[in-house]
Amino acid sequence: MLQHRIDRLRKILIEKNLDGFLVSNFFNILYLTGFKTLTENEREAWGLVTGQNVYLMTDSRYINSKFETRNPKQIQNSNYKIKLITPKKGLIKHLQEIVVEEKIQRLGLEGDDLKLNEFNKFKQALINTVLVPTEKLIIKQREIKDNDEIEKIKKACQIADECLTEIVKTIKVGQTEKEIAFKIEFWLKEKGYDLSFYPIVAIDQNSAVPHYDTRGGNNEKVKKNSIVLIDFGAKFQDYHSDITRMIFVGKPTDEMINTYNKLLAAQEKTVERLKTDNNPVSVDQFCRQLITDSRLLSYPHSTGHGVGLQIHEYPKISFTSIDILLPDQVATIEPGVYLDNKWGMRIEDMVLIKENKQIKVLTKFSKQRLIIDY
Amino acid sequence: MLQHRIDRLRKILIEKNLDGFLVSNFFNILYLTGFKTLTENEREAWGLVTGQNVYLMTDSRYINSKFETRNPKQIQNSNYKIKLITPKKGLIKHLQEIVVEEKIQRLGLEGDDLKLNEFNKFKQALINTVLVPTEKLIIKQREIKDNDEIEKIKKACQIADECLTEIVKTIKVGQTEKEIAFKIEFWLKEKGYDLSFYPIVAIDQNSAVPHYDTRGGNNEKVKKNSIVLIDFGAKFQDYHSDITRMIFVGKPTDEMINTYNKLLAAQEKTVERLKTDNNPVSVDQFCRQLITDSRLLSYPHSTGHGVGLQIHEYPKISFTSIDILLPDQVATIEPGVYLDNKWGMRIEDMVLIKENKQIKVLTKFSKQRLIIDY
Repeated sequence: MLQHRIDRLRKILIEKNLDGFLVSNFFNILYLTGFKTLTENEREAWGLVTGQNVYLMTDSRYINSKFETRNPKQIQNSNYKIKLITPKKGLIKHLQEIVVEEKIQRLGLEGDDLKLNEFNKFKQALINTVLVPTEKLIIKQREIKDNDEIEKIKKACQIADECLTEIVKTIKVGQTEKEIAFKIEFWLKEKGYDLSFYPIVAIDQNSAVPHYDTRGGNNEKVKKNSIVLIDFGAKFQDYHSDITRMIFVGKPTDEMINTYNKLLAAQEKTVERLKTDNNPVSVDQFCRQLITDSRLLSYPHSTGHGVGLQIHEYPKISFTSIDILLPDQVATIEPGVYLDNKWGMRIEDMVLIKENKQIKVLTKFSKQRLIIDY
Repeated sequence: MLQHRIDRLRKILIEKNLDGFLVSNFFNILYLTGFKTLTENEREAWGLVTGQNVYLMTDSRYINSKFETRNPKQIQNSNYKIKLITPKKGLIKHLQEIVVEEKIQRLGLEGDDLKLNEFNKFKQALINTVLVPTEKLIIKQREIKDNDEIEKIKKACQIADECLTEIVKTIKVGQTEKEIAFKIEFWLKEKGYDLSFYPIVAIDQNSAVPHYDTRGGNNEKVKKNSIVLIDFGAKFQDYHSDITRMIFVGKPTDEMINTYNKLLAAQEKTVERLKTDNNPVSVDQFCRQLITDSRLLSYPHSTGHGVGLQIHEYPKISFTSIDILLPDQVATIEPGVYLDNKWGMRIEDMVLIKENKQIKVLTKFSKQRLIIDY
């Protein structure tokens, strides 16, 4: 199932004249091999891809001394060469052996993941190998999703839609931001799913903070005529979703209605724009222009971002982006309007770019102005 | 409140002849300044400490254009010099200005946190400054806890004790590992606390896997005469706890009782040992010797680890440790016995090393053999 991902990487290695590539990043190891360690940041596993072999190096928590995986689901391809990391035979020794066996003269590294001190240790230990730092090599490969990934992302979006439908029904005057966030988390986890990230639930003044920290904030309560911003996502089999909706409690002011309508029009036109514009910088500019043309202030964040094994991936849809919009990418479109110390709004969908200038919106929760009684 | 942490760092900078120190690590920024970004890995903030000033560089999600923090609780010391990172004025430009203003000739960096490519960009941009990679500089400072930290850790341990007390009451034949893990998570989060890490709940054969992945595993059920390993912790105000207990459902076998008694004796004697032995390598050896003297197999993991803002900190209590055990350190003692494909046991407490050869066990949940009826 993952062979085509390895094949794609091998093509890049040939282009870059690399005999091997050391994969340190947790998500990239997961992407290429299906192997997932307990923590993302503790360097519990390493991958190494050569023209012929895929090595997976990990310790006895995951692999027993007979090189059997402790959790058979973990390794999906029995052709991987498993190397057991022990206190006596660490990563470095394994690398030294592999570069000799495989005659690796130029070894690619993830320069945007590898720590400076790790690199320096490798350099000392692999004196006959040229170490070639790369940037964004696998994460840029990851921006084009395969069918398996798209199905998982669709499911993650569908779960988020269902969750929001249920949560909205329970919002009441007196509830706090953290209570609503907790309900979202509980709903997802009870069903065996996970959060994409800790939900942003921002009420009234807090909604004017573009990325309000619900955990660290003042835990505002829903009041009569409150405006409630909910930005969250579900995680399904390691794949993320991301959606933002506005909820009006009681009667929104004319200014709120007016702003919401303009923001929604801009958001929807920008989604449409993706059909004909493959330049994320101009998509970003297009969306901001619609906002400012409506006599609203532009937003201090990007218009969108790719989503996949991580919540923030490529392509970036911002004015500093150097990406190209292509079929099989999945990204958010999420403009906002923020009136400091008053209130703010954001509308966010996830979209799939398809062949033949088609766009599929994956988050289907209604964007009609959502008013709930108090 | 955090001034003494900055003062301690400044002493180290003088020793190392550094004019400034760039802090990239999320936890180290939190430790030194109290400032916490939404994500741990997305480089949303940077700190820079010089002899006179503490700089905090972050973007408009956290700081508005008037340099006011969007969440007043975030920055606890108004003496910090705030620098606003924008697309037009990024980190590099701020660094270039600061090294000139502060006449920084030698700038320390976190070599075990900074990415290789980040370092290379700094090197190109700061040509008149010597960049000095360091290793474990602040995390080694963090191994000695101050009173505020110790109080938070004590509270985190107390919360874990309470949680376990409640959860144990609800364990029944037919429950799955994930159901029990979910109950732990729900109990903590409902009260506004958090998990230290995703709980390890391992039943029967799964308990023989030293760090079983409850999320990825086969979701074993509690059966009559099951053995249940629960390894989890609570997080309170960013500080972690970590505890492991065994639960016997129905009637444990003689071998189980015998093994448990020997493991418990070894665990308790090793805790005692900390009173007189400040060498973690010999503490580790001492514990393993007790296990093998009891004709049991030694465990394939370390005897313990420091705990604080992260779940795995210094000192390491293992045979590769180069640390020294000192007053005001907090660490786990967690030997185990694992019978492959049969069952395993681990008993883990958190302890505080005090002055005058005193040890305080912070996790107080009983270690008496815990048998629940089915």
